[in-house]
Amino acid sequence: MPPEPCPVVETARIVSGKWTLVLLRDLAAGSRRFSELERSLRGISPRTLSTRLKALEEEGIVERTVHGGVPPRVDYTLTDKGRHLVPIVEAMREYGARWLLTG
Amino acid sequence: MPPEPCPVVETARIVSGKWTLVLLRDLAAGSRRFSELERSLRGISPRTLSTRLKALEEEGIVERTVHGGVPPRVDYTLTDKGRHLVPIVEAMREYGARWLLTG
Repeated sequence: MPPEPCPVVETARIVSGKWTLVLLRDLAAGSRRFSELERSLRGISPRTLSTRLKALEEEGIVERTVHGGVPPRVDYTLTDKGRHLVPIVEAMREYGARWLLTG
Repeated sequence: MPPEPCPVVETARIVSGKWTLVLLRDLAAGSRRFSELERSLRGISPRTLSTRLKALEEEGIVERTVHGGVPPRVDYTLTDKGRHLVPIVEAMREYGARWLLTG
């Protein structure tokens, strides 16, 4: 086996993260505010959500936009790099549901 | 998070296995004999190859066919369940190569 990183394994590593998946699902539908994500991801603590969003920002998958106003509004949006993941995640979900999780 | 297994995570688990990927790649092109796979997967031991093929057979991804003759010829072929994985693996490979492994 070649020692260089495998693109398939790297992609699997990203999309199989526990919260990454649900964040991708929510953001695939459009921009979301922090509080909307928090409500949608029941059970996530604000600290964990903030850490996950920051990690996805650093990976270039999510973009954070601050809009002026008092209080300022903060939106999270998928970047191109994030949007290109969505159809792959959907294909994996369909495959898993059809071939792996059925009797 | 729901306690039931996630179809995306299950699919990622299958496709990110070290030898599974190269076996899928080889078998996507058509049936292969054991010796052909052994040659293609440089460095794999016959015992490891045999174990991986048996595991994929048990998961219903690979089908083993014994043809009569002396010595008998044994072919490995992707099942429907295996063939449906190939485009997903390709999409993950393209994504990883474009978005994850480039500067």
